[in-house]
Amino acid sequence: MSGRFSKKTADSSPQRVLAAFKVGVDNVIFSVDTTLNRVLVLLVMRQQEPYLGQWCLPGTLVRQGETLEDAAYRILDEKIRVKNLYLEQLYTFGNPRQERGVPASPSVRYLSVSYFALVQFEAAELIADGVSGIAWYPLDQVPLLAFDQNRILQYGHRRLCNKLEYSPVAFDVLPEVFTLNDLYQLYTTILGENFSDYSNFRSRLLKLGFLQDTGVKVSRGAGRPASLYRFDANAFAPLKDKPLVFI
Amino acid sequence: MSGRFSKKTADSSPQRVLAAFKVGVDNVIFSVDTTLNRVLVLLVMRQQEPYLGQWCLPGTLVRQGETLEDAAYRILDEKIRVKNLYLEQLYTFGNPRQERGVPASPSVRYLSVSYFALVQFEAAELIADGVSGIAWYPLDQVPLLAFDQNRILQYGHRRLCNKLEYSPVAFDVLPEVFTLNDLYQLYTTILGENFSDYSNFRSRLLKLGFLQDTGVKVSRGAGRPASLYRFDANAFAPLKDKPLVFI
Repeated sequence: MSGRFSKKTADSSPQRVLAAFKVGVDNVIFSVDTTLNRVLVLLVMRQQEPYLGQWCLPGTLVRQGETLEDAAYRILDEKIRVKNLYLEQLYTFGNPRQERGVPASPSVRYLSVSYFALVQFEAAELIADGVSGIAWYPLDQVPLLAFDQNRILQYGHRRLCNKLEYSPVAFDVLPEVFTLNDLYQLYTTILGENFSDYSNFRSRLLKLGFLQDTGVKVSRGAGRPASLYRFDANAFAPLKDKPLVFI
Repeated sequence: MSGRFSKKTADSSPQRVLAAFKVGVDNVIFSVDTTLNRVLVLLVMRQQEPYLGQWCLPGTLVRQGETLEDAAYRILDEKIRVKNLYLEQLYTFGNPRQERGVPASPSVRYLSVSYFALVQFEAAELIADGVSGIAWYPLDQVPLLAFDQNRILQYGHRRLCNKLEYSPVAFDVLPEVFTLNDLYQLYTTILGENFSDYSNFRSRLLKLGFLQDTGVKVSRGAGRPASLYRFDANAFAPLKDKPLVFI
């Protein structure tokens, strides 16, 4: 920051002129359909040029007097109803060649600050007011997105996988009670087959000590009845700031 | 992004006018003095108003035609000579009330994209050309920084601690060969006393299998000679994308 008002930045040679920006927020909102075992991402269809009719991440440009987070929540409030939506900043993309999304002046650059959330599929309700399309798009079927947003989505997917490995985020999207197999299936859906074998996964999770056996068993199909567990937030609390691996 | 050209954003009521931004980059560059066991951060002294004479993170405003990363590397190239400087994006701060750092127009907001790096103390050479002050500041003695940058520094420090817990970043700042006690001391310097007891730390690190015993022993003080190890990048390669905890 020391150079901000120095002779150098005051120099008027073209390469030293400060760039002017509009700033947008783009949200990567994931969900997991635990019935069909699919990772889903929230997409909306553009109803203006450019990229008319193409899918994109739900985003908006930041208005005067509005924080980045305000803008991100504002646009999501119009698209989805969900309790306890917690957005986490993902990454800021700002390439001088990617000055799309801002109309008119070619001298104004566009910067995208992306946000991430994982929400519970059953509890989230889409709002289709005033959009020509909105969808929980299966991640493996996402088409080419407007504004080259696939790289933002890809970055968000990496974050999702990392969070699953290092944090108890899975319990935000599972029902309140679940079998260890449900939990394993959720991990497999997001991280892919063979991320870990079931028995290692099971013993590691149980060893961490925050899965509480409810004493209730459930029968599914032909196998023997499986115990239902719940995530014990109190037991997890002392572990919260410790480095942990979940898989 | 769907709403960017909608009727809503075209509405001219004051709260719907898009914000105009200048974008700056601020670098949080850490180093560790392994002799004196101190965490250091690179600061420069401001030589203009506002905040004349106060310390701040080395940063700059982004120029036309320049990527965010280009700007971050440009300002660092003027301040420090170090091999293999690898900047990682930290966080983007942009509050409508924090419109400092940009002169003139009160209608132009300032957004700070921060970058992070950990560099080897002995290999990094400060460049004092054209600054009124530059320093490797001990982290525990950092004063109030210009532009409220202490919160950026704090965020950077959290990232540093996380990286130490989950990645082999320590081996970037240690000498090529080191004792397990050197490694433990580095962790203690950054994470604080009692982050782990020595014998647990030692056995966990050895178990991970990428510390190669050089067969050479070194005597320091009165204790018995300690083995010198080196980080074995080949042994670490297959673990690179696996979730690991180092402490």
